[in-house]
Amino acid sequence: MALSSQAYKGTRDFYPEEMSVRRQVFEKFREIARKFGFSEYDGPLLESYDLYAAKSGEELVSQQLYSFEDRGNRKVAIRPEMTPTLARMVAAKLGELQPPLKWFSIPNLYRYERPQKGRLREHWQLNVDILGGDAELADSEILEFAAGVFDSFGCGDKIRIRVNHRAWVNYYMKDVLGLDAEKSLKLSKILDAKEKTTEEVFTSGVLEILEEGDMAKPKASLLKEYIDTPLVEMHKKYPNSPIAELSKVLETLGRPELFEYDPIIMRGLDYYTGIVFEGFDRSGSNRRAIFGGGRYDNLIALFGKQELSGIGFGMGDVVLMDFLSENQLLPKNQPKCDFFVSLPSNDFWKDASAFAKVLRDRNFSVQMSLKSGNFKQQLKAADRSGASFSLLFGEDEWKESKVILRNMKTSSQEVLSLEEISKKVF
Amino acid sequence: MALSSQAYKGTRDFYPEEMSVRRQVFEKFREIARKFGFSEYDGPLLESYDLYAAKSGEELVSQQLYSFEDRGNRKVAIRPEMTPTLARMVAAKLGELQPPLKWFSIPNLYRYERPQKGRLREHWQLNVDILGGDAELADSEILEFAAGVFDSFGCGDKIRIRVNHRAWVNYYMKDVLGLDAEKSLKLSKILDAKEKTTEEVFTSGVLEILEEGDMAKPKASLLKEYIDTPLVEMHKKYPNSPIAELSKVLETLGRPELFEYDPIIMRGLDYYTGIVFEGFDRSGSNRRAIFGGGRYDNLIALFGKQELSGIGFGMGDVVLMDFLSENQLLPKNQPKCDFFVSLPSNDFWKDASAFAKVLRDRNFSVQMSLKSGNFKQQLKAADRSGASFSLLFGEDEWKESKVILRNMKTSSQEVLSLEEISKKVF
Repeated sequence: MALSSQAYKGTRDFYPEEMSVRRQVFEKFREIARKFGFSEYDGPLLESYDLYAAKSGEELVSQQLYSFEDRGNRKVAIRPEMTPTLARMVAAKLGELQPPLKWFSIPNLYRYERPQKGRLREHWQLNVDILGGDAELADSEILEFAAGVFDSFGCGDKIRIRVNHRAWVNYYMKDVLGLDAEKSLKLSKILDAKEKTTEEVFTSGVLEILEEGDMAKPKASLLKEYIDTPLVEMHKKYPNSPIAELSKVLETLGRPELFEYDPIIMRGLDYYTGIVFEGFDRSGSNRRAIFGGGRYDNLIALFGKQELSGIGFGMGDVVLMDFLSENQLLPKNQPKCDFFVSLPSNDFWKDASAFAKVLRDRNFSVQMSLKSGNFKQQLKAADRSGASFSLLFGEDEWKESKVILRNMKTSSQEVLSLEEISKKVF
Repeated sequence: MALSSQAYKGTRDFYPEEMSVRRQVFEKFREIARKFGFSEYDGPLLESYDLYAAKSGEELVSQQLYSFEDRGNRKVAIRPEMTPTLARMVAAKLGELQPPLKWFSIPNLYRYERPQKGRLREHWQLNVDILGGDAELADSEILEFAAGVFDSFGCGDKIRIRVNHRAWVNYYMKDVLGLDAEKSLKLSKILDAKEKTTEEVFTSGVLEILEEGDMAKPKASLLKEYIDTPLVEMHKKYPNSPIAELSKVLETLGRPELFEYDPIIMRGLDYYTGIVFEGFDRSGSNRRAIFGGGRYDNLIALFGKQELSGIGFGMGDVVLMDFLSENQLLPKNQPKCDFFVSLPSNDFWKDASAFAKVLRDRNFSVQMSLKSGNFKQQLKAADRSGASFSLLFGEDEWKESKVILRNMKTSSQEVLSLEEISKKVF
C-alpha cells in the first residue's frame, strides 16, 4: 500500500512559499531583538522528563506533554515550552553569566492539543526574557520590546497590551476581600476565565466563593470595585499596595495608549509573582491572546541555586500569523533572482557556469537552467524564477564570445560580451 | 533533591556565544543558497513511524530511531534524516509543483548514537536537493553548489570532493567481475569500509567473495585495476559503460582541482543509483566525511506517485563546525551594539527610552541600562555590551536638555543635545 503523504496531525509542512513567510517573520524578531540588544540562545529539543514534571502546570504534563523512554531507559520529553530549558541553562552557568541577561529564542514546541484555529501540536514561539537587573526597568523594557515587535510589522497601533500585577491580585484577595489562599486561587481562576464564560456562570462561581453568610454582599461589591475601578483611582485608594509598582511601570512607558490596566489578567497560577500581561488584537476580531508573560521570582531555585528573578513573554507563531494575516500585514513571498542563464545545449554549461560564479562572487543570485535546448521553455522558467535578467548563451552569439542579455520586465535584448555585462552590472 | 542542570545526553545548549556562531554558519548556508537560486523548506519534527520503516536503512530504524506512540496510539518518530520528509512533501503536491525543484533545508535531526567526536544525538543538517531537470546539469549544479558552500566560508580550496557512480560500480561488478547481485553488494560494503579497516581484513574479505577456484586470481587483479586506474584510462577502456556519464559531469565542472574520481565511494547501498560523492578535509586531519550525497531515482515511488529522480546531499553541523574550527574559519561571536544608555536614576527611563526608540527606528542597536545610579558600573556594562557609544543622561546635563556622548573606543566625551546627536549620527 502506498504511504500517506499527509503531515502528522497538528503539524505543518513549510513549502518554499510558506517558509519564505516564516523566515521573514523570524528575521523581524531577530532584527528587533538586535535593536534592543537581546541575544539569541537555543537548547535541545529533548529534555529530561523531570524538568517539566517539577515545575510546569499539571495539565501540561499530564495531558499535553510528549514524553517517552529512550533506548537507555531515560524518561525524556519533547519541549512543550522554553522556560524550563532557559532555567536549566542559566543555572548550569550561573557563575560565568553576568546578569542582567537579555535573551531570546525561537524554539519549536510540541503539545498534544486538539488542532484548531490558533492551536497546533507543533508551533514556534518567540521567547524573550530579562533575568536580573532592576525589576522596574526590566519590566518597562520587556513591555516596550513587546510593543516594538509589532512596530516592526508596522502595526504597533493595532494591539492592546493588558497589564496586571500578581502581588496586587494577592493583596486585594487577602487584605481587602479577606480570602484564604485556597479561595484566592479559585477566585483568580474564575476571573482569568471571565471572558470565556457566560455572565451567569461567572456570577454563580463568584458567589460560591464569597458566600459566607452576611459577608457575601459587601464582598461582592468589593469584587465589582476590583474589576471596574480604573488604575488611577485604585492607586489612590490603596497607595501602599503593590498597585503602586504597577502604576509606576505603566507611567514610565513611552506610549501609554498601547497599554491598559486590566485586573482580570492572571496568566497561570503558580508561576508569576509580579507584573503579568497579554497582548490582543485591538480590533477584537481574534479573542485569543497573541502573546503573554510576566515577572517570576524563582527561575532557578529548582536547581538548588540562589534565586534569580526575571520577566519574560512568549508569542506563538500560529496566533501571530493569524493576526498578521487578518490585518494584511503578513510578509509576502517574493522570489528574487537577478539572472537566469539559458543554454542551447549541455555543452555550454561549463562556460556559463564559470560566468555565473563571477556574478555570484559579486553577490548576485544566478539560476542556471537545468534544461538546455528549447529557449522558449527556458524563458518560461526564467519568468517563474522571478529573474530580473535572462542571460541567453546563443550558439551564434557565443561564436563571437557574446551572449544575449534580456531584461525580463521590458523584454528588451542586447548582445554583449561578458566583460560588457560585468561593466554594466558591477 | 535539586534538578540536574545538564542537557540531555548527546545534545547541546547554545548559549548566546555558540548561538551567534551557529546563526552565522546557517546564514552563510542561506546566502549561498540564494546565490544559486535554491529555496528553503521545512517540515515537522515528528513524522509517522511508517515513513522511516518503509525506506530508511535498517540500522537507522532498528537502532537509532527515536520513536514512540502518541496519546492517540499513533506510532511516530522524531526525524532522523530529512529526505523522507522531502519525499512526502513533494509527493503531496506533485500536481502543483513545477520541477526542476531546487530546495534546501536546515533541520535538526535525532539519532540514538553513542556521543563521540563528530557525532551527537541531536544535530542540524544542511539538506540540498534538485528534483527533476536534466540529470547531467543537475549533477554539475549540486557539485558546484557543494563547493560553493565552502567558498562562502573562505575555504573552497581546503576540501576534496571524491566522486563515484553507482551504475558504474554495478557495471564493473556484474559485467567485468562477473559477480551476482549478492556478491556485488558484499563487495561494495567491503570497498566502502576500505579506509576504516586494515589491509589484512580488506584482503581477506575480498578473497572470500572472489574465491571461485581458478577465477580468484584474475578477478583480484581486475579488482585492483578497478581501485587503482585513473578515470581517464578507465573511461578509455570502458567507453560505453556508465563511467562515461561520470566523466562527462566531472569535465563540465569549473574547478576540476576540487574533485577527484574515487571508485571506493559508495554512500549506502539501496538508495543511490547514479553519481555519489563525499567531501573531506583536504589536509586529512579529520577522516570523517564533511558531507555526502548522490543521485536517486525513485524519491516518491513509495507514495504511489510516478518516479521523480533527483540528486542531493546532506552536511551535518557537528562535523562541519569541527572542520571550520580546525581550520580557524569558524565565524566569531562579535557582540555589536551602537549605543549603551546610562541612567542616573529610574526616573530618567522615560525620556531616555523615548530617544532610544528614535535611534532604533533609524536602525541602531540600543542597550538601555537595567541598573541606574552608579555610572562606573554602567560604564562596565557598556563595555561588555560591545557598544560603540555610551549615552549618559547626566543629571546636570539633562537640566539643560543635554546628554554626554562617550566614544567607547577613544573615551572622548561630548555634551550634546539629542538633536545634535541625531544630526551627528543620522
